[in-house]
Amino acid sequence: MESSYPTFSFKNYMAQKVNAINQALDAAVSLKEPRKLYEAMRYSLLAGGKRVCPILCIAACELVGGTESMAIAAACAVEMIHTMSLIHDDLPCMDNDDLRRGKPTSHKVFGEALAVLAGDALLAKAFEHIAAFTVGVPPERIVRGIGELARFIGPEGVVGGQVFDISSKGISDVTLEHLELIHLRKTAAMVEGTAVLGAVLGGGSDEEIERLRAFARYTGLLYQVVDDILDMTKSSVELGKTAGKDLVADKATYPKLMGIEKSREFAEKLKDDARDQLSGFDPEKAAPLVALANYAAHRSN
Amino acid sequence: MESSYPTFSFKNYMAQKVNAINQALDAAVSLKEPRKLYEAMRYSLLAGGKRVCPILCIAACELVGGTESMAIAAACAVEMIHTMSLIHDDLPCMDNDDLRRGKPTSHKVFGEALAVLAGDALLAKAFEHIAAFTVGVPPERIVRGIGELARFIGPEGVVGGQVFDISSKGISDVTLEHLELIHLRKTAAMVEGTAVLGAVLGGGSDEEIERLRAFARYTGLLYQVVDDILDMTKSSVELGKTAGKDLVADKATYPKLMGIEKSREFAEKLKDDARDQLSGFDPEKAAPLVALANYAAHRSN
Repeated sequence: MESSYPTFSFKNYMAQKVNAINQALDAAVSLKEPRKLYEAMRYSLLAGGKRVCPILCIAACELVGGTESMAIAAACAVEMIHTMSLIHDDLPCMDNDDLRRGKPTSHKVFGEALAVLAGDALLAKAFEHIAAFTVGVPPERIVRGIGELARFIGPEGVVGGQVFDISSKGISDVTLEHLELIHLRKTAAMVEGTAVLGAVLGGGSDEEIERLRAFARYTGLLYQVVDDILDMTKSSVELGKTAGKDLVADKATYPKLMGIEKSREFAEKLKDDARDQLSGFDPEKAAPLVALANYAAHRSN
Repeated sequence: MESSYPTFSFKNYMAQKVNAINQALDAAVSLKEPRKLYEAMRYSLLAGGKRVCPILCIAACELVGGTESMAIAAACAVEMIHTMSLIHDDLPCMDNDDLRRGKPTSHKVFGEALAVLAGDALLAKAFEHIAAFTVGVPPERIVRGIGELARFIGPEGVVGGQVFDISSKGISDVTLEHLELIHLRKTAAMVEGTAVLGAVLGGGSDEEIERLRAFARYTGLLYQVVDDILDMTKSSVELGKTAGKDLVADKATYPKLMGIEKSREFAEKLKDDARDQLSGFDPEKAAPLVALANYAAHRSN
């Protein structure tokens, strides 16, 4: 952390938020009938992800003057949607992955039909949750937030990115521009939608929302570049998911297209670009977001 | 049509609404990148379904004093969600169906990965569309409508019903109570969510919304009972989807559990129960909904 930012314990902040989010998620999908479906939803949702997106949602809300309670339902919704995209991406007909968050993937445990349905259920539940349980926010902001989030998930966002992703597999001449398009649609869209949602719920001005949007795009892309680097340099045990799968799938990645060193430099640049977007905000309130960008850049799994 | 209801051309009403809905749907998912994804979305969405749900959404809105323009975005959203559930239900890992609305199913044409993603994209797009394009409705009603709709799609609704459905296949001792549970969750939940959404957007009172909810439950169950009868008595060409598949799948149906004649009597009773719920409304405004229930009971495909 550089000296221009006040002392801030990211570890404490993260721990507090992760705790609040995990409790809220557990309550949001308490076990009901059909039991198998709820078990499958809970298996993936409560599997101990890093909760980066929900923390970002709350931090963005707080940055523009909102409170954690305004954004906690949205933060849960964001994690449900993120989890849904992971469950479906792991399916045999997509990336066919066996390991996720250190555990067997959903379809390995529950079968393909339930994995598809658990994803669908989480996506629907996300919108139900944000509509029914967001408190202390004027309804016009909730409607706008839902629209923004849905747009970043849909065909112009995460789902569209997955289509670009699977259609680029095994193609040897994927360009850097095309790779960036995939990642902007996929990871970055999720991060962008999350940040914008938090800022909208918190009552941010249009200018503040746009700066957070740019911050999120840089951070999302940064996150993906680092993911590509980790996939090449870490083991499956260290990652909690299958390592080296990009190579096996002959998938375009930043290290493959520009080498490990240049990828690391690119990651540093993205981190700086992300931080620059926060310069106009109160440094104390921006500290969690600065720390999130640092975390995205320097994490080891 | 009985004499207590004024002269009303359901055919003209349907034709006008179907036309408005199809135009709105076409515009809502105009072809963009990734092209293959939009093609898959459009293939299933614009395949010429009966548009019963979107018409119900608009009719429910109009019944409580709202207008078509208040409900048209929601009507599109409902059809996107309905289509998503059909695409995913037809997947090889679920019902493994080759024919839908008279055409090869999505995964037959686009492959499984795109079929999963087209469904996901339609579900996300539905919520984006209703949030971004609903006009003339106070935002608190939009938020409530989104919450109600999402609840009827999620684990307590359509998706949950599909889990009950697939888990009851090949089980010889499914009871009538269990069958009703499946159908109430599956078809009836979709119909119920649609009617409630329309009534909420149209500004219906709590009492009006509850009566429409009951109407929709009866009509949704009615629709499913008639579906079961048609599956046994009509050909695939007549239905536009695979006929006799309930028998092949050894699936519990009303005709199987109570015989064809008793099923027909049950359908008539459900139709009367549905109509009874409309008795307190202005007969002229209720006419489209009465006609919808009649259509559900007496259709031939």
